[in-house]
Amino acid sequence: MRSILLGFLLLTAEAAAAQGSDARRAARTYRETREAAILREFTELLSLPNVASDLPNIRRNAAMLMEMLKRRGVDARLLEVDNAPPAVFGELKAPGATRTVILYAHYDGQPVDPRQWTGNGPFSPVLRDKALFLGGKDIPFPADGQRVDGEARIYARSASDDKGSIIAMLTALDAMRSGGQRPSVNLKFFFEGEEEAGSDHLRAILEKHRDLLKADAWLFCDGPVHQSGAQQVVFGLRGVTGLEMTVFGPTRPLHSGHYGNWAPNPGMLLTTLVASMRDDDGQIKVANFYDDFRPLTAAERRAVGGLPAIDSAIRISLGLARTEGDNALLAERIMRPAMNLRGIRVGGVQEQGANVISTEAHASFDFRLVPNQTPQRVRALVEAHVRSQGFHIVTDTPTVAERQQHPKLIRMKWETGYPAQRAFMDDAFARALVASVGAGADRPPLLVPTLGGSGPGYLFTEVLGVPVVTLPIANYDNNQHAANENLRVQNLWNAIEMYAALMTGLGREWKPVVVP
Amino acid sequence: MRSILLGFLLLTAEAAAAQGSDARRAARTYRETREAAILREFTELLSLPNVASDLPNIRRNAAMLMEMLKRRGVDARLLEVDNAPPAVFGELKAPGATRTVILYAHYDGQPVDPRQWTGNGPFSPVLRDKALFLGGKDIPFPADGQRVDGEARIYARSASDDKGSIIAMLTALDAMRSGGQRPSVNLKFFFEGEEEAGSDHLRAILEKHRDLLKADAWLFCDGPVHQSGAQQVVFGLRGVTGLEMTVFGPTRPLHSGHYGNWAPNPGMLLTTLVASMRDDDGQIKVANFYDDFRPLTAAERRAVGGLPAIDSAIRISLGLARTEGDNALLAERIMRPAMNLRGIRVGGVQEQGANVISTEAHASFDFRLVPNQTPQRVRALVEAHVRSQGFHIVTDTPTVAERQQHPKLIRMKWETGYPAQRAFMDDAFARALVASVGAGADRPPLLVPTLGGSGPGYLFTEVLGVPVVTLPIANYDNNQHAANENLRVQNLWNAIEMYAALMTGLGREWKPVVVP
Repeated sequence: MRSILLGFLLLTAEAAAAQGSDARRAARTYRETREAAILREFTELLSLPNVASDLPNIRRNAAMLMEMLKRRGVDARLLEVDNAPPAVFGELKAPGATRTVILYAHYDGQPVDPRQWTGNGPFSPVLRDKALFLGGKDIPFPADGQRVDGEARIYARSASDDKGSIIAMLTALDAMRSGGQRPSVNLKFFFEGEEEAGSDHLRAILEKHRDLLKADAWLFCDGPVHQSGAQQVVFGLRGVTGLEMTVFGPTRPLHSGHYGNWAPNPGMLLTTLVASMRDDDGQIKVANFYDDFRPLTAAERRAVGGLPAIDSAIRISLGLARTEGDNALLAERIMRPAMNLRGIRVGGVQEQGANVISTEAHASFDFRLVPNQTPQRVRALVEAHVRSQGFHIVTDTPTVAERQQHPKLIRMKWETGYPAQRAFMDDAFARALVASVGAGADRPPLLVPTLGGSGPGYLFTEVLGVPVVTLPIANYDNNQHAANENLRVQNLWNAIEMYAALMTGLGREWKPVVVP
Repeated sequence: MRSILLGFLLLTAEAAAAQGSDARRAARTYRETREAAILREFTELLSLPNVASDLPNIRRNAAMLMEMLKRRGVDARLLEVDNAPPAVFGELKAPGATRTVILYAHYDGQPVDPRQWTGNGPFSPVLRDKALFLGGKDIPFPADGQRVDGEARIYARSASDDKGSIIAMLTALDAMRSGGQRPSVNLKFFFEGEEEAGSDHLRAILEKHRDLLKADAWLFCDGPVHQSGAQQVVFGLRGVTGLEMTVFGPTRPLHSGHYGNWAPNPGMLLTTLVASMRDDDGQIKVANFYDDFRPLTAAERRAVGGLPAIDSAIRISLGLARTEGDNALLAERIMRPAMNLRGIRVGGVQEQGANVISTEAHASFDFRLVPNQTPQRVRALVEAHVRSQGFHIVTDTPTVAERQQHPKLIRMKWETGYPAQRAFMDDAFARALVASVGAGADRPPLLVPTLGGSGPGYLFTEVLGVPVVTLPIANYDNNQHAANENLRVQNLWNAIEMYAALMTGLGREWKPVVVP
């Protein structure tokens, strides 16, 4: 059976390759003559601040996306609930097509600290001749008719995560129209506006617009390509949940000389607690934390084993003398749950370092979940651990009575979070997808059981009952979520070709598996 | 011998009381008719930003102080070295006086974070009808002829630490002149400009101006009065040193999903290190840290035992369910060395909490030293501890080679710091001082072996060979070193009377001890 399946895969791959090659060539020709215009539309979108909590600006982003879809003949509308950032929805029917896919990207970005950005901040896009860490210098954006070197990078919040994906898929539509090509599947577009804030309203939007969002599959256009530069098709995403902890000290800041080592320092209490939660090797010391962790299947283990060796190159480029987990492979590590300390804030350091005992100490975590963990269970286990360290947990600012009663007092606020998602790696959709993506690139894509990052993929499967597969486009070293986020220009160009090959090739090859 | 000494003390106390009572009454009469003008001069001084690293503003402070001294007929000049904040020096000779004292205060303030201040920031003084934590509301500064309630407070950086002391001593001069009284000792004034930055140039200034600074004793006008509200005469100060630690992670910020639990998180490495240095009870876990600690003498122990019981009242007012050191008395705790975590900065929390592994993690500490500890020895012990936790220590930004060689890499930067200081509690100067201070207040002052806070007192004894005693004036709940620093108005009024009594009473009673 294995050899027959394999033969089928090769056959469909060849057919898709022929179709995809045409689309890919056409997309490249189109792009090469219009690089300035493509980057102009991109920087216009990047110039709009897009932190999910900043609703007025989020709405300006949504309005611009509506315009961009309509310009391409895509029927577009906003999907709204409550006071949440709207999702931008678009639909483009393909005459005769029997399959429908929805391309997902999010248009909101991670919170920003403008002081940490080189240049004029996260919403003033800059083109640089190469990556900053390689000594990249600012260069002007091209004038019409000029070309841009593929190693150049565009710096701005969401350049890679995910506004770049949006520009690439819309430019693929332009290229197809220009080349007289038509999508082979019905296309829908769903651009979420609060992914980086935890997707709190996504379920409500999906449930409310269930009919509108009918499709055979969702394609998640988010995340980086493999560190080797190869395109990857990713069948799973880790779940995520976030935690904000605040330990309370004296009600007034105190002089450390007059009260130090008498009044408890909330920063020390917090530090001791944080240190109790995780060891230097990344092992989470919360009791029973790994109980729900489903070990890898044989297929997943094989897929991981087949990925190119990139660890030592990355380690060197990051200046790391060692990695956690006894130097286990990165690809194996991200198959496990993770706890990340995303920040601590207590008092001040360096020029802000005053001799004070602070009133509050804050720590912030994200947890990455794998099948079969749930945010609810993680929350219960972590809170049990915190209690085992002698803390009394509150969910709001403590009262005077609570302060005077509990020597160790902590506020814990959890993000809603969501569980992990995994799609099948060998059904008809998976094979058709792999073939059409392969037609849009120089090399066959890598098949990856799960991405280290998270996305609310589980929800689509849970609410709409369809598979979700992720197609990342960004360079791996894109400073995703951090200052100086960037997209390598060649990755944008490659993505346009990949989307064109996918949109023209996918429907034709998407057949049921024939197993004799 | 004890009874004879005691008799002598009572005698001098009575004589000083008579003298001091006149001066005190005159000072009160003077102040009560000029409260608006006194506060006007005070707020003008407080409006000048005074962080020691801000040299242009520091010079504006020094220039204003020069003017204020000269207005009072005090011969004033700047004492300069290098590019450091200048010290402001003044001299006022008293005809016939045989003794000289120098009044010390610092005019620089702790670093500020304006966002944490209620109102318009640290350099926009605000008068409030009572303390903010008691629900204080802004009230206008008085017009000429209006009075201000003693429970009102002046909010601004350095209101209590130490610009308030400077205003009080200069107003005492005005009151004495207005009442036809003369100082009974030669007075010198020394206002330091970088005490809160570690007094790095103080030794050079003292050595360079040794002749100018000749005196029989230094009076340190810094710190808070006792929590009971009583004036205190403090014979010692703790030493201090500061430490900035930075742990290095990856050279680029990394997405916590794609690299979490593979790339070491510098925040976790730092947290684990900090937790290893001190336990929840304030005990410093650095090997041999307490070896140099000289236990209290019997006299010091008696003095501590004689202080009013204030612990439980303070504990309740601070909302603390417990204190460190197994609920030992505050007065006993500050006789010991202390290690205070003044801040940690890693990534972001709350709305700034991005899912990132940071490149650097910072922690900041102050250490309070007691006799016979030295900053040099503390540094050696702490660095040995850090090495014992597996860290490689650098003093500057690490090179690529250092990063790739050392799994745990830390930068440690130490402030120069200084040791503790203790004056004799029973010599002639001490007794005369206690008597004259007592004449300026309702109650006899408390005698305190050491203040929890620090000042470079040891230097004066070391360089100039004279005793140093501290006379604090601020309310204990003044938010010293923190946001919303404030001075209770009645403390300012009391200080004016205390200085007047001291300046007119001290010289007369300062006689050698007669021991038969």
